[in-house]
Amino acid sequence: MADLDESIELYRAALGAELVHRARNETDGIEAAFLRTGDGEVELMTATRADSPVGKFLAKRGPGLHHVAFGVTDIEQALADARAAGLELIDSEPRMGMHGSLIAFVHPKSLGGVLTELVET
Amino acid sequence: MADLDESIELYRAALGAELVHRARNETDGIEAAFLRTGDGEVELMTATRADSPVGKFLAKRGPGLHHVAFGVTDIEQALADARAAGLELIDSEPRMGMHGSLIAFVHPKSLGGVLTELVET
Repeated sequence: MADLDESIELYRAALGAELVHRARNETDGIEAAFLRTGDGEVELMTATRADSPVGKFLAKRGPGLHHVAFGVTDIEQALADARAAGLELIDSEPRMGMHGSLIAFVHPKSLGGVLTELVET
Repeated sequence: MADLDESIELYRAALGAELVHRARNETDGIEAAFLRTGDGEVELMTATRADSPVGKFLAKRGPGLHHVAFGVTDIEQALADARAAGLELIDSEPRMGMHGSLIAFVHPKSLGGVLTELVET
């Protein structure tokens, strides 16, 4: 997503999505908007600098789908289950996400090229 | 996804996803498995031939995220809203999806490179 404001407005007008949270994380070099869409949530992201992970993603692949997130009730248990199933974890321990929730990422090579996030809800 | 059976088992073991429907569509050249994950659903797809749209996607980009789907209660209204918001539609009229639901796709160039499906629920 190149322009976050434009994208938020587009998702609102076209799909009825409602902005619930917006945050900027200088460490990760991203600005993100979280939109509610029925039971689900869409996170629109843009890079705050070209050398951040999302900046590199955009430079390499252009705008598009970045990752999928699954809500879990117990992230420690979810990580243990993922590890037991043979998944390679990017985050072996939960860390705080932009959303104020504990998160952990699973390596895309473990799940058919799909970067996958676990979010404690 | 290269091997559908392996992928279904992986999503079950690692993420607790439950297979609810599996179908093959020779016209579109895809085989798909629909898995329930809490309030959401994951569709795992593979190509039944290299020259199908999904076959070409896999050849060009490798396995990964293909599209996002939003459930809507009235797909005719959702298409009218999308059109009014300036989105370019791949399907200007709803058509029957593999799931037995009416579906329509929005062109990725209208939504930041994200191929987007509307599904009447």
